[in-house]
Amino acid sequence: MPRAPLEWTRANFDALLEELLGFVAIPSISAQSAHRGDMLAAAQFIERHLSDSGVHNVQIMPTAGHPVVFASHHVSNDLPTVLVYGHYDVQPPDPVGEWLSPPFEPLVQDGIIRARGVSDDKAPLFIALAATRALLQAGELPVNIKFLLEGEEEIGSPSLEGFLQDNAALLAADMVLSADGGMWLPDVPTVVNQSRGMTSLEFTVRGAASDLHSGRHGGGIANPLHAIAQMVAALHDQDGRVTVPGFYDGVTDLSAAEKEQLRRLPFTDEQYLRDVGAPATFGEAGYSTLERHWYRPTLEVNGMWGGYQGEGSKTVLPAAAHAKISCRLVPGQDPARIGAALQQHLRDLTPAGVTLEITPGKHGAIAYRIPPDHPGLQLAVTVLGDVFGIEPILVGMGGTLPVSGQFQRILGIDTIFFSFAVGDENIHAPNEFFRLERLRLGLHAWTEYLRRLPEAWT
Amino acid sequence: MPRAPLEWTRANFDALLEELLGFVAIPSISAQSAHRGDMLAAAQFIERHLSDSGVHNVQIMPTAGHPVVFASHHVSNDLPTVLVYGHYDVQPPDPVGEWLSPPFEPLVQDGIIRARGVSDDKAPLFIALAATRALLQAGELPVNIKFLLEGEEEIGSPSLEGFLQDNAALLAADMVLSADGGMWLPDVPTVVNQSRGMTSLEFTVRGAASDLHSGRHGGGIANPLHAIAQMVAALHDQDGRVTVPGFYDGVTDLSAAEKEQLRRLPFTDEQYLRDVGAPATFGEAGYSTLERHWYRPTLEVNGMWGGYQGEGSKTVLPAAAHAKISCRLVPGQDPARIGAALQQHLRDLTPAGVTLEITPGKHGAIAYRIPPDHPGLQLAVTVLGDVFGIEPILVGMGGTLPVSGQFQRILGIDTIFFSFAVGDENIHAPNEFFRLERLRLGLHAWTEYLRRLPEAWT
Repeated sequence: MPRAPLEWTRANFDALLEELLGFVAIPSISAQSAHRGDMLAAAQFIERHLSDSGVHNVQIMPTAGHPVVFASHHVSNDLPTVLVYGHYDVQPPDPVGEWLSPPFEPLVQDGIIRARGVSDDKAPLFIALAATRALLQAGELPVNIKFLLEGEEEIGSPSLEGFLQDNAALLAADMVLSADGGMWLPDVPTVVNQSRGMTSLEFTVRGAASDLHSGRHGGGIANPLHAIAQMVAALHDQDGRVTVPGFYDGVTDLSAAEKEQLRRLPFTDEQYLRDVGAPATFGEAGYSTLERHWYRPTLEVNGMWGGYQGEGSKTVLPAAAHAKISCRLVPGQDPARIGAALQQHLRDLTPAGVTLEITPGKHGAIAYRIPPDHPGLQLAVTVLGDVFGIEPILVGMGGTLPVSGQFQRILGIDTIFFSFAVGDENIHAPNEFFRLERLRLGLHAWTEYLRRLPEAWT
Repeated sequence: MPRAPLEWTRANFDALLEELLGFVAIPSISAQSAHRGDMLAAAQFIERHLSDSGVHNVQIMPTAGHPVVFASHHVSNDLPTVLVYGHYDVQPPDPVGEWLSPPFEPLVQDGIIRARGVSDDKAPLFIALAATRALLQAGELPVNIKFLLEGEEEIGSPSLEGFLQDNAALLAADMVLSADGGMWLPDVPTVVNQSRGMTSLEFTVRGAASDLHSGRHGGGIANPLHAIAQMVAALHDQDGRVTVPGFYDGVTDLSAAEKEQLRRLPFTDEQYLRDVGAPATFGEAGYSTLERHWYRPTLEVNGMWGGYQGEGSKTVLPAAAHAKISCRLVPGQDPARIGAALQQHLRDLTPAGVTLEITPGKHGAIAYRIPPDHPGLQLAVTVLGDVFGIEPILVGMGGTLPVSGQFQRILGIDTIFFSFAVGDENIHAPNEFFRLERLRLGLHAWTEYLRRLPEAWT
């Protein structure tokens, strides 16, 4: 028997949670080829859920990599069409030893769900599915809705560009509503107006042809670990600025008014350091922590290794050392140009006695800024204000949502990030979690957003 | 039926090789607690071999760590007593994937035996056992002989100091003849007159309490990988000199005559680079490669790691980064003082935003220089000249033989290194090997050395 959408989500909350846990238990790790079967299982979970809800034209569409789950439910030519975006793949759970419970055995405890991928992006994606079901069962879905749920977000969405180009007509819509993204605080609603872009690469420094005994050979030929340390150390200057030539070209500072708005946000360095357990803030001189997180470009080494890492000691002069680097970019920076400049800089920094090999990351992403008068953005502010009872705050986002740039370029539409993840939920780290309370709030907000979109759009 | 010792070793070569291969197949990795049973099996192999040869008073003696195999065979109070030293433990085989054949399945091919530990130190140790058997079966052992074969050399011999102190009377001898060490070239006999000492430590740099998402947090708090790179890069100056304050205090340069002697050795940088497959020599400015290897102190990072190392990318800001460092020391440097200075230097180099933890290596080792008129050293030169038909060369040794300093300090005796390993045999690296020809030469030389020692000693 149909019920009003909100009433339905409340009455069925336990069953919805149970379904979500089943989805989260699938180790859909896109980066690791051993999990190809799990990737398909996660796609099939979504396909089944959408079909069971009565969504039309649900299909799993192949790509060169992991498949896309697509659906298209047409209601009326007079109504706006929203394209819901999300991803069903997750990061690897490493280091597994630091998890308090197994990463793919979701544990509900103390008001949270703990599992890999629950915050990024399975619970937010599931909210979109469940809100759609709530509206459909009541016969109250007032928009045309399409779904584009991909399985390669955590590996840089290598197939998405081609998929969008090949299926632009199929995907035609008025806006994208993204279940990926995330809010900044658990209790204060925030709406993202900008996200950072990215470029990445991996490089290897080689000395001798094989590992050597550091007693016999030490001091006579270059140690790749010394060389890579020297190179990485030279990537920032003493003020924490990135030394890649041209890195900051085209990057503009915030206006005085924007800086003032940032200062008014409920954020202190002291509380932030307590939250992350770090001894001090650190970064580019002359900028606040939030400016560094949201509006300044960065270069971070995400992994570096070489030589013996095991128990005890091994006096080895290693043959090679490796590092993975990613740069977060802001509007004005071109990922391809920054990537090329970084490669050239690494070549220039390579010391004598070693050779350099660079493997560029597969896809860069441009930073994204949403027009402030976009009706979908304004509706997000209105709905969140109603659901939370607090005026939402417009914030930047340190992370990268490369898809928004692609949607704008290929489909000609903007993306509103409407995720109910929170930035403190250990995404990409051990003990990722998602709050049960935000599952409730998310179901409420998504149902309201879809219900009120036609009115906002006119 | 007894035979002349040399004739016996030739007639029994194949059987001896077979026994050696069985010894080498035991994965006696002292650094890894999972191999405790293999350690005992290797000790028992030696115990059985010595007993079967007719050596008196063979026993496996416990220590706080891995046991020592000891034996004492007295012939006459009028004869000198030689204490044979060697070790039955081996290095871990990492990285296992780079081996051409399994590290603990010794393969005899093209004149070599390939296996972990065959060069360091199992084949050289076995030569000492087999030469003793050859002399005993002929009734021609003309010296008192003791054996001290330990199982902790590859982890810094943590129990040896106490063992020597507790058993000084039992171990009393006129000299140590070491099966550990190694010659410099396969075809030219060399005798070591100096070896480097060592001090080591491991350190960890910590930022946030757990791994964080590098998009959200990058640029706002310190990245331990950047910090450790900065610290490691600062450990050497632009001339390749170690920057630890006081590091070179008390270190003397070679005399002009000694430098001239080095230049006359059959060594070229070009050939050396071809041998190790490195693009260029590299090291402390103002010194030749052989000086850097043998007579200059060094600091090498043996391992460094942090963040994501797996397939694909993971945009993580790691909580910690780690490094293992070892310094090779020369006469004039005190391991404890250098170790303390390195620790202080690392503390001074630690940048803002991270904390430092240091774990000192368990035991340092002082560098060792053998008196040039030592009768055991002179006998080594004579015997090698006879066996090879070439005048031996006196050389330094880049590696560390910490036991020689301990034997001198606790037992009051010098150590002659008489190993038939060669420095190019990939010790501590993948595809370690030992030459069959040097098994023959070693059996010849050890038999001769023991036979002629009484005459040299008078």
